[in-house]
Amino acid sequence: MSTVEESMLRFAVAPSGFKECLDAEEVAEAIATGIRRVIPGAVVDGVPLIDGGEGSARLLASATGGRLIPVTATGPTGRPVEAHFARFEDTAFVEMAAAAGLSLVPAEHRDPGRTTSRGVGELVSAALDSGARRIIIGCGDSGICDGGAGALRALGAEILDAAGEPIGEGGAELLGAHRVDATGLDPRLSDVELTVAVNPRNVLCGPDGVARRYGPQKGAGPERVEQLAAAMSRWARLLGEHCGAELAEVPGGGASGGLAAGLAGVLGARLESRFDTFLASTDLEQRLRTADLVITAEGAIDASTALGKIPTEVARRAKRHGKPVIALCGTIGPGADTSYEHGIDAITGILTGPTALPEAIDRAPALIADATARTLRMLLLGSTLRAARDQRPAA
Amino acid sequence: MSTVEESMLRFAVAPSGFKECLDAEEVAEAIATGIRRVIPGAVVDGVPLIDGGEGSARLLASATGGRLIPVTATGPTGRPVEAHFARFEDTAFVEMAAAAGLSLVPAEHRDPGRTTSRGVGELVSAALDSGARRIIIGCGDSGICDGGAGALRALGAEILDAAGEPIGEGGAELLGAHRVDATGLDPRLSDVELTVAVNPRNVLCGPDGVARRYGPQKGAGPERVEQLAAAMSRWARLLGEHCGAELAEVPGGGASGGLAAGLAGVLGARLESRFDTFLASTDLEQRLRTADLVITAEGAIDASTALGKIPTEVARRAKRHGKPVIALCGTIGPGADTSYEHGIDAITGILTGPTALPEAIDRAPALIADATARTLRMLLLGSTLRAARDQRPAA
Repeated sequence: MSTVEESMLRFAVAPSGFKECLDAEEVAEAIATGIRRVIPGAVVDGVPLIDGGEGSARLLASATGGRLIPVTATGPTGRPVEAHFARFEDTAFVEMAAAAGLSLVPAEHRDPGRTTSRGVGELVSAALDSGARRIIIGCGDSGICDGGAGALRALGAEILDAAGEPIGEGGAELLGAHRVDATGLDPRLSDVELTVAVNPRNVLCGPDGVARRYGPQKGAGPERVEQLAAAMSRWARLLGEHCGAELAEVPGGGASGGLAAGLAGVLGARLESRFDTFLASTDLEQRLRTADLVITAEGAIDASTALGKIPTEVARRAKRHGKPVIALCGTIGPGADTSYEHGIDAITGILTGPTALPEAIDRAPALIADATARTLRMLLLGSTLRAARDQRPAA
Repeated sequence: MSTVEESMLRFAVAPSGFKECLDAEEVAEAIATGIRRVIPGAVVDGVPLIDGGEGSARLLASATGGRLIPVTATGPTGRPVEAHFARFEDTAFVEMAAAAGLSLVPAEHRDPGRTTSRGVGELVSAALDSGARRIIIGCGDSGICDGGAGALRALGAEILDAAGEPIGEGGAELLGAHRVDATGLDPRLSDVELTVAVNPRNVLCGPDGVARRYGPQKGAGPERVEQLAAAMSRWARLLGEHCGAELAEVPGGGASGGLAAGLAGVLGARLESRFDTFLASTDLEQRLRTADLVITAEGAIDASTALGKIPTEVARRAKRHGKPVIALCGTIGPGADTSYEHGIDAITGILTGPTALPEAIDRAPALIADATARTLRMLLLGSTLRAARDQRPAA
């Protein structure tokens, strides 16, 4: 069908996972299946990617040949949850969502004014127990907005009110906070390298701060959002008084309900762009350089995709090498077209007809493989278009 | 983005309507909108197509500058319905679905053993009243399986049982039929040219006969299906005795629940492949010849598409001119891949995420335009693939 020598084509397949559906490895595998159905001889280089959010610890442990260490931790609502962290080489990777993720908060308890990051501190403590010299905390998919106060307290810090009494759990309590007392912090923290992997676009305060930007999806109504925005402002001021740095608008400080700012201000953790953290440990650059075509994917492509999500991060890097990029997704949402400005050349959805979400999730691997195959047929057809035009007779 | 001179591209847009959603003109318009969004200078030749089924009379009246003449007729369940036929030049076009379509049968009354084609005969009678010299009856989307017995009786014929009494309405009654009495037929019928536009793949009897193939979707359970298959066999025998021709397996005889065979056997109507009837009246051939790319569409692409539906009819004709063909649809159903063997090069769905059918129908024009635009981006990206491969460094 095509003028391209299809069998020579080399693909870099660099997807994210599809949240609450498939992890990035499974998505990459489904895409490879679809490619090979149309071009059996294609070279497919899979580079499943993580962003630090839900599912990242499991995939990182698998990709590095490390271990996933189970920890029973305090969940976001205060009830214990079965969490875990990944351990490889001298490093522990703590996925904050494993202990304080939004999916751990039952719908009827979704109130980021009350939920706590305490379990994340407990995971860091367990990582210290494991002898790790380097701890990376991955942000993303959080169900909290407590500025990391819960995590800090689990590690021995205290946040006191005007009367010198410890405040309660949850972001709203920060409105009554007066002072950070770090004297009781776990002393082992000073011997480890602490990094928080963040989306640098998330800031703690201001009109686009974490409370206003993510509060609603975490379950906050308009009043709660404004209350939490005020709490984050107060928290930024206390953190500044404590550490001498201005964290209100530091890039990534707002990550995971302000957890990043809290860990930076009280533990001296370094905030690092999550893609610098995670992509560095992959061979993505090499795979992009040698690819004829790059396929990335995420559960949804929409206006937020251009704001630091995996598909546009992959696309920007691919474009440095001049490579064409396709994004495949479950849902093409409002504003998806904005990703065209960030290196994605074409978008394709996986659904084949009117479908309810649970059915789409059940059938996701087959839907992804089928959509990939259809997309390749379209691309190969496109490769014949020049010839088609040249053969057009005068009308 | 592309190595193709996009502005020079010429498109033939030859869709079917999307049943119970958009007519073919609306689909063609939505596709043109999507094309022009990506390639503002593209030449788009719209050739909205009909297959004789639901909506065909309206579109044909509009396309020919004719009139749509309203007629109150007996509906498939016996209740009156507001039907119509199209009138242009010396011709009347009767869409059988306007008086006996499946969509006129409420879900709880779907029993092709009882429903009647009587209203189709009434439309033919009204067409005779209008002075038409030529009457075309379009099949498709029927809700009946009475072999046209109802239509014939509306035109003055009678079907008698062993006792010489008229049988009742509905396909199941044919089991008791003994003889056709055509003496009372409207005499004007002998002065007009009568054509039935059929899908030639539909036959009256046998394992792939109309009762077994379409009975279930018209509401028949397994027993009813076999009963109707027996009724159609008996009907074929009576028709043969009446007219001297063997109609059991004549191509198209099974169209619209056997209506075509009935009209052929008793009225001497000519059965004609629906695409020969309808495509001849369009400039499709010319448009295909000058196109760089052909886009066709239908509500669903599935295993039945290759069995005489518009997209594969268009694709076969396009392939005679060596033109690439894309099929766009609302639902990509089981067996859709079989259409690749009939000239369709690539298929694309319009849905952007988990969606219920009513919402998809509401948003169909925008979904079609958006999907077309995404597809063009993919094609244009494909047109760069050869260049991409040539630029690939050794890995």
